[in-house]
Amino acid sequence: MEIEIISDVLEYNKEHAEVNRQLFKDNKVLVINVLSSPGSGKTSLIIQSIKRLANFKIGVIEGDIASTYDAEKIKKYINDVVQINTGGTCHLNASMVEKALKRIDVKNLDIIFIENVGNLICPIGFDLGEDYKVLLSSVSEGDDKPVKYPKGFIKSSVIILNKIDLLPISDFNYNFFEKKIRELNSESPIIKLSCKTGEGLDNWIKWITENVKK
Amino acid sequence: MEIEIISDVLEYNKEHAEVNRQLFKDNKVLVINVLSSPGSGKTSLIIQSIKRLANFKIGVIEGDIASTYDAEKIKKYINDVVQINTGGTCHLNASMVEKALKRIDVKNLDIIFIENVGNLICPIGFDLGEDYKVLLSSVSEGDDKPVKYPKGFIKSSVIILNKIDLLPISDFNYNFFEKKIRELNSESPIIKLSCKTGEGLDNWIKWITENVKK
Repeated sequence: MEIEIISDVLEYNKEHAEVNRQLFKDNKVLVINVLSSPGSGKTSLIIQSIKRLANFKIGVIEGDIASTYDAEKIKKYINDVVQINTGGTCHLNASMVEKALKRIDVKNLDIIFIENVGNLICPIGFDLGEDYKVLLSSVSEGDDKPVKYPKGFIKSSVIILNKIDLLPISDFNYNFFEKKIRELNSESPIIKLSCKTGEGLDNWIKWITENVKK
Repeated sequence: MEIEIISDVLEYNKEHAEVNRQLFKDNKVLVINVLSSPGSGKTSLIIQSIKRLANFKIGVIEGDIASTYDAEKIKKYINDVVQINTGGTCHLNASMVEKALKRIDVKNLDIIFIENVGNLICPIGFDLGEDYKVLLSSVSEGDDKPVKYPKGFIKSSVIILNKIDLLPISDFNYNFFEKKIRELNSESPIIKLSCKTGEGLDNWIKWITENVKK
């Protein structure tokens, strides 16, 4: 019975994800679902991306359990920002995103970043209609995350290793990290960067600009 | 209907939590449920605690989505270690712990650490029968975690800030972090420490030894 309910939830989600996907397609908007643990740097990555993509019109949907903290940070740079407060729910779903999309000017945007709730597990299973899932991991979380939380590394189109400025003072073994990702996912690019120093961000910006639809 | 199911799940969990709680009480074992995001340092904290609590008999239950990685690390120090692989589930529940307890020598132990799945949201709602929930946050995750993930900070008996060795090279504002915790929880001690350098661990060890039941 529990399984049946879960299947209903995912079926319901899928319907709304298709509505979102069609909207994104009709408006030629590139939509990126940004996933990570709490504190890996999702908001920082989005802000650094906005700063470097001044030629594009960008919108952001911010997902959090509580607070408008991240949306306020992003409001300093762009207007099309919507905060979703899930009120306890551990992930965004397509229906929440569908409602949020009504509050931004989708047809005039080139790129939408959806910052998911900080959670390396639950958000992975919920299609939001996005073009790509991008997973952030960070040096300070340790090199064993692909081993312990494999699903996000399998399902994401880009894997970002953030906080590489901490590599010199950390025992993070990059070769191990890469090897363990490659055992799960042989294709998705792995981009090393630091939102703090800016190192490596060019590669991420290059990936985005190559995938913009307009 | 969905709500009813969730209520059933929590009711079922509660029954098993009571079984565990009675077992812990009968055997005078101090049981600590360790909660945090992925990579905040739960395993490191447990290893550093084992090293400093040589006069006590310690058991560990390791919860992970996948792998036996953490249990193997701890096996180097003690024998009573059980790995629970949740197979995708985002938290431990009391029934999983009840089964795991059959595989360690509870009656001869003084302390059991239960390392929950790395997730700052879902595990908080599941009582495992433990004496105390202990929440780890780490400097590298940023000072806004109490604002964005309040429930764990409300429900935990001790809040640990790990990785304080990173404070000098971080923009983490400890006063803000503490203030935001105190708005949620006026009582639980906040212990600052670094599992890497050992700084502050004495305060944590003192708290444990004061709470041992035998």
